[in-house]
Amino acid sequence: MASSQIEIRIRYGETDQMGFCYYGNYAQFLEVARVETLREKGISYKELEEKGILLPVRNFSIKYIAPAKYDDVIQIKTEISDIKNSQIIFKYSIYIKQKLIATADTELVFVSKENFRPIKAPDDFKSLMDHINE
Amino acid sequence: MASSQIEIRIRYGETDQMGFCYYGNYAQFLEVARVETLREKGISYKELEEKGILLPVRNFSIKYIAPAKYDDVIQIKTEISDIKNSQIIFKYSIYIKQKLIATADTELVFVSKENFRPIKAPDDFKSLMDHINE
Amino acid sequence: MASSQIEIRIRYGETDQMGFCYYGNYAQFLEVARVETLREKGISYKELEEKGILLPVRNFSIKYIAPAKYDDVIQIKTEISDIKNSQIIFKYSIYIKQKLIATADTELVFVSKENFRPIKAPDDFKSLMDHINE
Amino acid sequence: MASSQIEIRIRYGETDQMGFCYYGNYAQFLEVARVETLREKGISYKELEEKGILLPVRNFSIKYIAPAKYDDVIQIKTEISDIKNSQIIFKYSIYIKQKLIATADTELVFVSKENFRPIKAPDDFKSLMDHINE
Repeated sequence: MASSQIEIRIRYGETDQMGFCYYGNYAQFLEVARVETLREKGISYKELEEKGILLPVRNFSIKYIAPAKYDDVIQIKTEISDIKNSQIIFKYSIYIKQKLIATADTELVFVSKENFRPIKAPDDFKSLMDHINE
Repeated sequence: MASSQIEIRIRYGETDQMGFCYYGNYAQFLEVARVETLREKGISYKELEEKGILLPVRNFSIKYIAPAKYDDVIQIKTEISDIKNSQIIFKYSIYIKQKLIATADTELVFVSKENFRPIKAPDDFKSLMDHINE
Repeated sequence: MASSQIEIRIRYGETDQMGFCYYGNYAQFLEVARVETLREKGISYKELEEKGILLPVRNFSIKYIAPAKYDDVIQIKTEISDIKNSQIIFKYSIYIKQKLIATADTELVFVSKENFRPIKAPDDFKSLMDHINE
Repeated sequence: MASSQIEIRIRYGETDQMGFCYYGNYAQFLEVARVETLREKGISYKELEEKGILLPVRNFSIKYIAPAKYDDVIQIKTEISDIKNSQIIFKYSIYIKQKLIATADTELVFVSKENFRPIKAPDDFKSLMDHINE
């Protein structure tokens, strides 16, 4: 299954004066989650960029259900829900001790580093897709 | 019309190694945009908090159309599209020199600082809504 | 010995267009390093705040020797070098694979949450100091 | 005189749960201050990079005297205190309504984008230095 789980501890600098993790910091947590999900599948995002392929985010949406506080350890469950053509979709569920605190999804696009034009998903991603379909 | 426009210059620290403004930084830009929109309507978000009312974000979605680069000045057009019960919805269009680079919307909830329970939108917000309906 | 070591992987959002970890992000890494150093000594910074004691930074200096890149794992060695009266000093050495890339130190002050006035270091910190002196 | 002043309003996302602007955010404010100082002297940092010259920070130190809060407007007075060989030193004083809240200084190095080796300060910077010496 093309899913994985990571843990991130909320840093002090990620809180705001409301006493919660600032809503804008989740985007970075999700970035970490998808990079680690790919790494677990044998794909290094760093190497992807070195090969000339970038993966910018095209759409991002998030629903905040409950706050995360300083020093909380959040678990992010990440699932690659679709890969087709130049597009890859990740879905995330964020928990604190089994309690769902947020859900999110991001759509990213494979683009060439040369001209930022969309390109087809590389083969190792396609095989990832095959595993999903199994 | 309950809309306004602000400008933000992309800081070096807001770029990433792709050479663009990192996708996660837009949440903060939108926060600035809605605070300034409210200020323009005579409402200080700071004073709102001092009165015991917080306004956390419940839903946030954004579509990235084109990148912003270092030193670019982005224009954010913000519109308060709805206020009802404890909820307020902002819609944003982000431009660089008239070119649309992103659209976003956020749903925020009025909550009591005491117990984080939803409360009705304060009167000055309601009158804002009346202006919208005019 | 009141020292410890942690590892942090550089996030994509922490890079800048120079292709390196942005210089401004190290302050947050050092915060994580000192919190984990204290945790290892049995002190929870979160609980400290809950008891009404804050620990803001008064002085911070850092020397950047070599850059950290995306996906690099940095090791931060943290040492509590002095605790006296209301003051605590941390010293940090940051490495990537044994290579020193930065050194830093921070001076923090114990203050009361009530009035932000300096207060004496709590007893569990003092005993930490005793261990240092041993 | 190679000095200038800018204003920055503290964003909500820049506060922490202590209710103050997080200490780690000042590095970014100083970056904005030095870029605007250079712009005022007719030098675009963006164009400098486009010409193949980078200006990474080698040393940074800051003394926090009083906190900045959400929505505060800080004034940063920036002075280029020295330029010699490949090095440039900026000194900063940060105020809120005439009250000094922090002082800082940064040493940056001119390096080639090609090999990150130090290079001599470009001529337009040297003439800046002449103005300082006048």
